[in-house]
Formats: sequence, structure tokens, C-alpha cells
Amino acid sequence: MTILVVGSLAFDDLETPFGRASNVLGGATAYFCLAASLFAPVRLVSVVGEDFPERHLGLLASRGVDLEGLQRRPGKTFRWVGRYHHDMNVAETLQTELNVFADFHPALPPAYCASPFVFLANIDPDLQLEVLDQAAGARLVGMDSMNYWIDHKPERVWEVLRRVHVATLNDAEVRQLCGTPNIFKAARQLLELGPQAVVVKKGEHGAAAITREGILVLPAYPLETVLDPTGAGDSFAGALFGHLAQTGTFSLEALRQALAHACVVASFTVEDFGVERLARLTRAEIAERYELFRQTTAFYSVASAES
Amino acid sequence: MTILVVGSLAFDDLETPFGRASNVLGGATAYFCLAASLFAPVRLVSVVGEDFPERHLGLLASRGVDLEGLQRRPGKTFRWVGRYHHDMNVAETLQTELNVFADFHPALPPAYCASPFVFLANIDPDLQLEVLDQAAGARLVGMDSMNYWIDHKPERVWEVLRRVHVATLNDAEVRQLCGTPNIFKAARQLLELGPQAVVVKKGEHGAAAITREGILVLPAYPLETVLDPTGAGDSFAGALFGHLAQTGTFSLEALRQALAHACVVASFTVEDFGVERLARLTRAEIAERYELFRQTTAFYSVASAES
Repeated sequence: MTILVVGSLAFDDLETPFGRASNVLGGATAYFCLAASLFAPVRLVSVVGEDFPERHLGLLASRGVDLEGLQRRPGKTFRWVGRYHHDMNVAETLQTELNVFADFHPALPPAYCASPFVFLANIDPDLQLEVLDQAAGARLVGMDSMNYWIDHKPERVWEVLRRVHVATLNDAEVRQLCGTPNIFKAARQLLELGPQAVVVKKGEHGAAAITREGILVLPAYPLETVLDPTGAGDSFAGALFGHLAQTGTFSLEALRQALAHACVVASFTVEDFGVERLARLTRAEIAERYELFRQTTAFYSVASAES
Repeated sequence: MTILVVGSLAFDDLETPFGRASNVLGGATAYFCLAASLFAPVRLVSVVGEDFPERHLGLLASRGVDLEGLQRRPGKTFRWVGRYHHDMNVAETLQTELNVFADFHPALPPAYCASPFVFLANIDPDLQLEVLDQAAGARLVGMDSMNYWIDHKPERVWEVLRRVHVATLNDAEVRQLCGTPNIFKAARQLLELGPQAVVVKKGEHGAAAITREGILVLPAYPLETVLDPTGAGDSFAGALFGHLAQTGTFSLEALRQALAHACVVASFTVEDFGVERLARLTRAEIAERYELFRQTTAFYSVASAES
């Protein structure tokens, strides 16, 4: 199954306690595409400026990402300048230059409108709704958002939530949306709007998926070295949707496998700066770490342990 | 196998966003004993004042806890006054009255010296070392500590760590001891001192066990209602040691099952104030939630999922 993703491409200037990276490929969809394309075909709708180098597009194209929906506009590409301190669960945004993103409107090429899987990466919820109005063939729609939109356009974020199947948000966003510190209670409130699943990203503390059929919780894959958490959540969402699209079905069992793969892919992302690790990640590496992750988190049913 | 535990009994005055409890049974060993005794026989060395009611001792005795090593001294029982805000991972200590605990020295009844499992709950590391000097038959020794002792007697805490097999500490304590924000890196430093395993308690974020043979990580059992986190870590340690003592062996596989049971028991503890939930907890309830927990966290090997 093909996935359509809509959201930002950017230049990032990053600083963590372990180093810096300037002017590197960033934006939610860069991470999403590189992760999702390891599992399923991906189509991208985004916008870049005249300054966006061919090599970044070449990287995405080398993964088979369909770039027909990518707009190139006069002006500069969106830029994010961010910093992480020792608690790398929280990014400090030092600067955001919208540039060509300021008047971006997503226009789906006709072929894209039939995409069965659609992911609305973190952008203005009005733009997310514009995508939904065009994506007539969507069977499974996911969304992300951020504190800025929850603060400034809460009604539009709620409207997006009413029209998607899977909400992938981080723990702080879920708490902020629902005004309750308990993420499971908050997720149940969100389920009442319509989504089939709320997937809560908890950074170094793992992830949870809350559905009407049951709850899944996973720790993060244990890492001794985290160089840069940028894009962890976007690559998590990419692997989650990629794995669901590869499976082609949506159920608690499909979500279980997808969630574990999402944790594994995100664990690779943070091992290097920007998209570096994701760009060279292979399916064999994912399979190997997936099995290690299973051994790290598994415990047995008492019945089988005693038999 | 029998477990000897040494540490505090107390009166607690507790306040959380969901209510208060005054003058209730507390102290690390109250939680430890109520949890561990669900799996294995427990012996207690502690001290209480003249004000300590028979009904609290009766509760422990009803679980088969051997109280021969409990000292009753003139004066008042140790008291802790604590408060939790919405982030219930962090307790605010409002007041500590040491009372009879101020000049406590653990004296093991002769029969206790042969105890094969020994747990040194959070007390002055000098007292923990006094216990180790007496516990000649100890085959598996565990310890806990707190930020106060790491600040004030770091060399003595390190000395305890050199003489135990299992360190059960919370994430903040592990970071503080090793001066590094990464708990897996910090735990490896602690393993170099001698312990076979470092078990890191992460509250609502679950737990990890780091050994030379491998790493185990588990999320917390998902709860929508947490009334009072007091004693979660102590009941976690009690269930961990209880399950290890019930199994009678120490290996990565034994630790795997014990860790999962510890997470389950701790999840019950926080569902009510003080020891209320633990005091009425049954093995059948543990078994039922253990299986739910397994379903919540399990994912399959790709090989078996595809077969």
C-alpha cells in the first residue's frame, strides 16, 4: 500500500550536548519518508525554496520516494534552529524561519488523491484539512501536531482529530490537548472524537497505543549513546505507518508489530545527527535490532514458563 | 528461600492531588514485606516506638512476616510527611522525624544470620554495612538508597554497592551516583563495582535491569488512576526479591520474570493510599494482571509472525 505524506522539508541547525550540525536536511517529512520508505512506497507533498540542493532530493528519490507533489518556489527553504540540553526529551526552538512555507498550500497531483494511507505531518491544521478534502481514496489517515497549533488553533486540531484514524502525538501534546496529566485517560478522551488509535510518543520512555480494543505499551530500545533526538518522533511515525502500509491491514495485532518497528527505527535515528543514521539504515539492521528489542522486553506467560 | 529485610517502619502523613492519609503505616519495609510475602517467607529487622499499634504488626504477621528481629524502643516511631504534585514521579518531603530511628542499630537474631536472601532497604549505608557483617549466610544481597545518602555518605554507598549482588535504585539516584544522564551507561559503571545486576526504577516509565549478560526493559503497567505513589519502589523491590526467592535461582531469565512481577505489584500499590491496596492484594490478582501486562507489552518475533 502506498503512503502519502504531507508536511515540511527544512534546513536544520542543530545543537546537542554531543555536537552540532548546520544547514542539514530536516523537516518532519524528511524523517518520515526515510523511515516509511524502508517498508512501503511513499509519495511526498511539501515545498522547498530555490536553495534546496539536488542531493537532498536525490537521497529521497534513491529510496523510491515519489516527488511529483513537491513544490519548488522562489525564496528560501523553511529553517529550524534548535538546541537540546542534557534532558534530550525536550527541544528548545531558537529560531523558526517559515520562508516558502509561509504561504504553502498542499496541492495533490491527481494520482495522489487515491493514496490509501495518508499521513498529515505536523503543519497548520488548516492545511491538514485541505489535504483531507483532496485525499478521496484515503483508507487510513494519521496525523501529528505540536503545542503551537494546540495553543493557537485548538478547534482546528480537534477537527483534524475527528477526521483521522490514528493520532500520533507526544505525551506533552496529549496532556495539553486534554488537560489531564494521565496519558491513558487523555487518550480515551481523544478516542471519543473518532480515531481508532491514539499513539503516544514518550521519547526515551517509549510509546503507547490506546485503542478501543486494548492498550499497547513499549519502552524505548535501550541506548547508551544518543547524539541527537531530532526527528525521532517523525521517523517513529514513518516506520509506524510504513509497517502498517506494508501489512496492509489495521488491527490491534498489526499495530503491535508496527509500534515495535517504530520504536526500533526511532532508536537508530537518534544515534547520529539529523537524518545521517536513517539515510544509511537497512532492513537487515532493523530486523536484527527488532529481535534484540524483543529479547530485551519479553517476559513469559506463567503458564508457558511452568510447562 | 527466606528473605531478610532491614529498614524503616514509619507513620506517614501523605498528600497527593487525589487526597490525603494521615498517620498511616509506612516505611520502606512495610511495603517491601507486604509485597515480598506474597511470594516467599520474610524476616524483618526494624525499629518502632511505643506508639506503634498492634494492628500494624498484626497485618505483617498475617502475611507470615517473622517479627523476631523487630525492636520496640521507648519514644516515638519514625515519621515521614510527604506531598506529591501532578507529576507524581517526584515526592516532596515536608518533614522527617527520625525519633527511635535516630540511634537504631540492626541486630540480627541468630537464626536470621543464615538468611539466603537479604535486602538492605533505604537506610544509612553504615547500618547497611552492619547488617552485611552479620548476615553470614547471605547468597543474594540487594540494596536501595536515596539522594540524601549519596550526597552525605557517597563513599559508604559505594562500599555497600561493592558488597551486594543487586542494586535497586531509581533513575535519579543512578544518574546522581555516576554523574551521567544516561541510565544504561551509569548502570554499567555500577556493575564494575561488583553487583550482578542494577535494577533501575523509573516510576510511571517502568523499569530496567542491566546485567553483564544482557539488558531488560519494561514499561510500567498502564494505569488510568494513580492515587498515591508512596511505596511503589519499595513494593517493587519486595516483589522482585520475593519472586527471585520463590524461584530460588538468580539468572537473567529469573530476573526477567521477577522484574515483570515487580512492575505488576507496584502498579497495584499506587492504586490506593499507603499500604491499603497491597494489604488486600492476592496472588490471583497478581496472576491476572501479569497476563494482561504480558499482552500489553508483547510483540512477536518476525519469524514466528510470518510462519
